Amino acid sequence: MPVSYRPLDPFKAHAVAGVRFASVQAGVRKHNRYDMLIAEFVEGTNVGGVFTQSRFAAAPVQVCREHLAATTAIRALVVNTGIANAATGELGLINARASCTNVAAALGCNANQVLPFSTGVILEHLPMDRINAGIAAAAGEIKANALAPWDRVAQTIMTTDTVYKLASTQAVIGGKTVNVTGIAKGAGMIQPNMATMLSFVFTDAAISSALLKPLAKLVADESFNRVTVDGDTSTNDSYIIAATGLAGNASVGSLESADGKALIAALEKVSLELAQAIVRDGEGATKFMTIAVSGGRDFAECDRIARAVAHSPLVKTAFFASDPNLGRILAAVGYGAPADLDPALVTVHLNDLLVAEKGGRAASYREEDGALTMKNEDITVAIDLGRGSAAQTIYTCDFSYDYVKINAEYRS
Amino acid sequence: MPVSYRPLDPFKAHAVAGVRFASVQAGVRKHNRYDMLIAEFVEGTNVGGVFTQSRFAAAPVQVCREHLAATTAIRALVVNTGIANAATGELGLINARASCTNVAAALGCNANQVLPFSTGVILEHLPMDRINAGIAAAAGEIKANALAPWDRVAQTIMTTDTVYKLASTQAVIGGKTVNVTGIAKGAGMIQPNMATMLSFVFTDAAISSALLKPLAKLVADESFNRVTVDGDTSTNDSYIIAATGLAGNASVGSLESADGKALIAALEKVSLELAQAIVRDGEGATKFMTIAVSGGRDFAECDRIARAVAHSPLVKTAFFASDPNLGRILAAVGYGAPADLDPALVTVHLNDLLVAEKGGRAASYREEDGALTMKNEDITVAIDLGRGSAAQTIYTCDFSYDYVKINAEYRS
Repeated sequence: MPVSYRPLDPFKAHAVAGVRFASVQAGVRKHNRYDMLIAEFVEGTNVGGVFTQSRFAAAPVQVCREHLAATTAIRALVVNTGIANAATGELGLINARASCTNVAAALGCNANQVLPFSTGVILEHLPMDRINAGIAAAAGEIKANALAPWDRVAQTIMTTDTVYKLASTQAVIGGKTVNVTGIAKGAGMIQPNMATMLSFVFTDAAISSALLKPLAKLVADESFNRVTVDGDTSTNDSYIIAATGLAGNASVGSLESADGKALIAALEKVSLELAQAIVRDGEGATKFMTIAVSGGRDFAECDRIARAVAHSPLVKTAFFASDPNLGRILAAVGYGAPADLDPALVTVHLNDLLVAEKGGRAASYREEDGALTMKNEDITVAIDLGRGSAAQTIYTCDFSYDYVKINAEYRS
Repeated sequence: MPVSYRPLDPFKAHAVAGVRFASVQAGVRKHNRYDMLIAEFVEGTNVGGVFTQSRFAAAPVQVCREHLAATTAIRALVVNTGIANAATGELGLINARASCTNVAAALGCNANQVLPFSTGVILEHLPMDRINAGIAAAAGEIKANALAPWDRVAQTIMTTDTVYKLASTQAVIGGKTVNVTGIAKGAGMIQPNMATMLSFVFTDAAISSALLKPLAKLVADESFNRVTVDGDTSTNDSYIIAATGLAGNASVGSLESADGKALIAALEKVSLELAQAIVRDGEGATKFMTIAVSGGRDFAECDRIARAVAHSPLVKTAFFASDPNLGRILAAVGYGAPADLDPALVTVHLNDLLVAEKGGRAASYREEDGALTMKNEDITVAIDLGRGSAAQTIYTCDFSYDYVKINAEYRS
């Protein structure tokens, strides 16, 4: 059960003109489940993306990078679950490229206008007979306009997720209403023997193709790069923004313009909601924790401290136990902090409760208030460093028996 | 139950001339247990130490640093368990200094020749009445020569440890046999609401006082700085080498000399054994893992990759499950690695078994061989980066239900 999260009613997700989805049961690794998604984009669509920093980037990630280096005029995404096509060497690249070639042939575009995504077991090769049959079936459905609804679209990319992740909003840009709707999957930065956080956000806004790449980076930094379940980075992480341009707005020409800012805000809203949904559905999660560090001298020190707290197994197990264990939080701040931090200036709040100041427990703090606060499912740990105006917020979840159970017992 | 570890028979630990121990039941936080240790050193003893890098360094750590900045001619250590005297502000410093003053008065030396150590609950103040009574009792026992044996010495500093940690060796330096015996405590880099790794190593070797500090740093880097249970750094971590000089060797004047190297080797042997004992007694540990990275361009990249693998909750839970989950190991190498690492050159062995090469699973690898290897309690993950001659080895343990249980359920 995810923490305080109910997936969006698919009928409340805004349609995005110029995007068509087909979902099929390709039987990549298991039968009787939708495991292949094709998203087809109208001509004129521009796409930007960011990908895992892993040096063992999976074959589809390598092919995405190649294709996006050649063109932003992407016409389709093809996604399979079941097998991640990661750590698969030369044959993995051949298979990822073949998927693109087949999609391109079926939909009528160039192979480098197709981006491939895979998620599932590492070290296995894609079964190309089933992949190709799935592509043919999905392309047939798109041509027949037998399109998949939003909930099925979001469900198709799930692996160990317990709920689908779907978010949607609208913005007014240049007097026109634009739609932004996105999906994501992931329940750990790496799944148990499964890899990958994937997210695809679609908009009908018109925006200059040159801006898509910096836009994707900027929005990812404010959303997916601010969540962590276990600190592990997958080999397949991918985040894609596709803009079809059919909303009728004058093309956004700058990210700093009012239109650019409005579009960024809409994309961030959808992406942050999806990113938080991944944490709320984190493996074994029972608590959603917001680690908000402020009063830092620069972003980097705030980020380092927030991640030290968010990744500390001792902090995470204390939250699982609903234990207001201030010592563990202060210890994590202590080892994440720069050498010249003055502990006497640091204050820590749990939600609205002042718990630590002047290098120790706050004089006003009472253990029973801390215990009461820790009973909430959503808890903010607000850490003020008292030495500047920089800030960073990281979202994470607790560490439970079920995290160990899921990751120790899962055997593909 | 610790992994493959039986504590040393106290009768096999070599006596160190010039060191006398008293252990008493001071009742710092619990009754009926030895919780205070005083080690008294003969005049002429020199001491060096290294301490936690935490910015929330506990009061005793701050006082140790002050005293060692003034003199290496330390005459006594005073250690209490139960309360860590960490995150205790100004009163914490006053209490730590008072402990030194009282020990100095009882034993007849200056207050800055006494080093204080505390381990236990964070955020609580020391009960100075009981601390002072304990100091008086322990000093009385030392004067009466009612000394504590090695096993009690090692047991006195335990908190959640399940076994005491004691190691001992001899070396021949300048024709004289010198003795090196050490103790340690710790079962997580932070204990459940308890803090601290503590280790004290005693030798009768004579060595120049100026060398003690670099010596302690050098030996710690090869031992305690190479182990990790959960990646958390305590507020109280302390490592001390005390050299009484009574072995009769000509004083070691250089760490690079043959005598210096022989002494370093003996200290490293004892310290690494103690450090590994902490991992083997790690909270909930069922496996002892050696992460040996070689073939790197420099030490830093080997260290970063080894720690990425050692800290990955997904790797640690896979080892708990005895699951040869190569994908998780490769994924951790992938995110720990520098941007220009070529995955095709990386090889990975589990003990003697080649499991990965050329960016994927080794052609010769069979899952049943991997499963057999993972049944061992001691497993080496050997990662060759294939791009240089630098190396680093990190020791860690797995992540089990009991880790969560110990850290979630423990309530002081």
